[in-house]
Order: sequence, then C-alpha cells, then structure tokens
Amino acid sequence: MTQNIYDNETFFAGYSQLPRSVHGLDGAPEWPVLRGMLPKLTGKQVLDLGCGFGWFCRFAADEGAASVLGVDVSEKMLERGRRETADSRVTYERADLETYAPPADAFDLAYSSLAFHYIEDLAGLFGRVHAALKPGGGLVCSVEHPIMTAPARQEWLADADGRATWPVNGYHDEGRRVSNWLAEGVVKRHRTTGTYLDLLLGAGFRLEKLAEWAPSPEQVANEPGWAKERERPFFLLIAASRG
Amino acid sequence: MTQNIYDNETFFAGYSQLPRSVHGLDGAPEWPVLRGMLPKLTGKQVLDLGCGFGWFCRFAADEGAASVLGVDVSEKMLERGRRETADSRVTYERADLETYAPPADAFDLAYSSLAFHYIEDLAGLFGRVHAALKPGGGLVCSVEHPIMTAPARQEWLADADGRATWPVNGYHDEGRRVSNWLAEGVVKRHRTTGTYLDLLLGAGFRLEKLAEWAPSPEQVANEPGWAKERERPFFLLIAASRG
Repeated sequence: MTQNIYDNETFFAGYSQLPRSVHGLDGAPEWPVLRGMLPKLTGKQVLDLGCGFGWFCRFAADEGAASVLGVDVSEKMLERGRRETADSRVTYERADLETYAPPADAFDLAYSSLAFHYIEDLAGLFGRVHAALKPGGGLVCSVEHPIMTAPARQEWLADADGRATWPVNGYHDEGRRVSNWLAEGVVKRHRTTGTYLDLLLGAGFRLEKLAEWAPSPEQVANEPGWAKERERPFFLLIAASRG
Repeated sequence: MTQNIYDNETFFAGYSQLPRSVHGLDGAPEWPVLRGMLPKLTGKQVLDLGCGFGWFCRFAADEGAASVLGVDVSEKMLERGRRETADSRVTYERADLETYAPPADAFDLAYSSLAFHYIEDLAGLFGRVHAALKPGGGLVCSVEHPIMTAPARQEWLADADGRATWPVNGYHDEGRRVSNWLAEGVVKRHRTTGTYLDLLLGAGFRLEKLAEWAPSPEQVANEPGWAKERERPFFLLIAASRG
C-alpha cells in the first residue's frame, strides 16, 4: 500500500500548520487556477481522491453538488474532516488509493489535489477513475510538477549571475523519491509530464487543459518571498474529460 | 518575420556539419520516437513545415505519400533540398511560417521538426495548420523542450554531489531568448509546455501523444557522451489530431 505519511505524528503536526491546512482552499495559492478548471458543480455527483481535511468536499457541497464522496487513507485527516467540514451531502470513506475502486458510472467529477504523486500504480487508479465517471464526466487534479520531483537534491542553486536556479537532474529516471518534507522519509513517485499524459490518455481520458502553476505576479506582490517560485514550474494542474 | 538564421553563412556552415545534416533522419537521435508517432503515409498528402534539407519530405515520398509539400524560409536549405532530396512527389516552397497559410482542407499530415520554437505567432500558425488538415488528419511535431529554452544561462551546473544538473530559471517568463548556438544571436521563443498545449487545444487539436525525449539507455551505451542528456528533457514531441 501507499506510505500513509499523513498519520505520522510529526508529519501531521507540520502539515496541520501549513496555510492550506489552517485557511483551507484559500490558503492554497494554486486554488484560483484549479478552481477555474472545474465544471459547474450544481446537482453533480463528486468524488474527491485524497480529500484530506475535506475542504474541497465542503466547497463542492456549498456549490450545490448533489453528493460528495471524500476518500483518504489517513484516519487522522478524515477524523478532522468529519468534525470540521461535515455536511449532509458529504460522505467520508477511508481507503488506500492504490487499490480503491469507486463505484462505476457514478460520478460527474473526480477531483484530486496533490495526492497522485504518492501513488505507485497510477495506471490502475486512472483506469478505475475513468470507469467511475458518467458520460460527460471529467477529472480535475493537481500533482507536484515533475521538475520538482525529479532532482536527487531538491535544493536551490545559483547560476553564474547569482540567480536562483532549480537543479534538474534524474528527469528520466522515474520512480521512488524520498524527501524530508515535514518528516523524514516521505516517499513520492517521480513521473515525467509525458508519462502523466500517457497514463491519462491510455485510460481513455481526453486532455482538456494542462497548466503549470507558479504564483502570479499579483501573488508575488503580496508575498515577496514567493518571487523565486516563478523561476520553476511548481504544480501540474490537469483537466481531462471521460472522452 | 522570423529571424532567418539558417541563411546566415556561419550558422549554415555549422548546421551543415551536424549529424542530422550529414546523415539525415538517422542522424537525429529523436527520430525513432518521432517516427513512431506518425500515421501510415501511403497515399497521404503531407505538409512539412520548416523542411530544411528535405530529409523528411524524401522519407515521406519513399513511404508512399501521394504528395509532399516542404516549406522553409531558408533559400540555402531549399536549394540543397531541391538538389539532394528531389522526388517527383515532393514540391519545395519558400515561405515564412509566421504568415504562411497552407491551402485549406488539403493535408492528411502536417509535420514539423524543431521549427516552432522560432515562431512568434504560434497561435496563428496552429490555426492555419488546423484549417489545412482534412478530416482525420493530424499534426506531428518536435520543439526544443521548454526546460531547455527557459534558462537565462544555458550551461550545466553541478549539484552538491557533483552530478550534472540542468539550471532551470525564468520558466514562467515566456518570450524571446537569444542563444549563441552555431552563430551569435540566434533568437528563439520560450514557451511553457502548458502554453504549447493551450495553443494546440485552442486551435481545435486533440492531444494524442506527448513525449519528452531523451536518449534511450541503448543510445547512451552507443554514445557514452550522451549520458547526461538523461538528466533533463531535451525535446518535446507532440502528436495531435484534427479533433
């Protein structure tokens, strides 16, 4: 099964203090772009894969979704979700996305924020998600950008002019990456952008939009510390239809 | 108009000595992957945008294409093409891709190798190419990968372990890049992968395949000097259908 780092106490404590954990969707700087890739949710059946604290589930319910199923492997996260983002239209379920099979032909939208880069068998998951969509349905998801997950050493360098420079190597060596983000030994899976698209198209999806997120100039004006995040692509945001 | 660097004598002399100029398609290490993205060419009407010496035009004719139109801005390249890759089914035409409008509904395949990263108005070109395709037609093309075109200084660095590391910065600052490859002041246009896809989908294309090329382990075994090319993505290869 996927490493369940979110139930590690050190990781969970650190994660709980991130802006996106304290402020919900508005604390996630990529949210405005990801939100712009969503269809209208009124009356829709929504699936959230790796729902965490349930911020998106609650958002979808507030937007008028008929039902929202939030799935996560972390009991700690679901527990807080059930407490803080409860809604009569939202159901939370604990499951490992490596093997989880949502009901077939049941959803208009599958959503996933920053979960798929933990998954080893992503071809299998995309296939099961595709089967879970109704005709006209789609997938909107975010992952850490392959340029972020590739390097052996994920540390900024400086070029000969002293400019902040992101160190790309190992790009074509896909697979396991271990980082020490919030806790020791967090395991992610590096895949190229080409592979993400191969897996999606191979599962039958049609690409509708691919955005490589960085903070906007306006966001940098509000948070000058983010300036160097415009040097590199940070997240990959994808919208795909059942096709 | 696009800078016509290929008619610069210094550039042309250097370019003419590259393996891909001496050995044709077999001298281009990405060719096996790009070839694998092509449809069957028998009986097809083919357009080659930025045809250079005409190697692909000749290949398409040899594969049984009914007609091949090769377009390039460089008179020097077309002149050699007319001499060395002449075929009764191949026609060469000089035109600037910034404004060139191929005949509408006329082609089964539009092909372009390493030309689109010179084009400023790529949205316009993609629109004209889409209109030039017959129903069922498609586009297969290669460009320098955005990770290659982004950096202010396109020079390898070493990470703290001494590993060859490609320096990414300026990724989100799209536009003009000046490099000194074969000649001084070669002007290219940096675009993100997201923007290439936006422009394609916006023109009405459907994405069929996106590959981020690096030499295969077998190619590196034959050319050990290429080992570090597996650290970074080098070319972006795209297949798209008229949709």
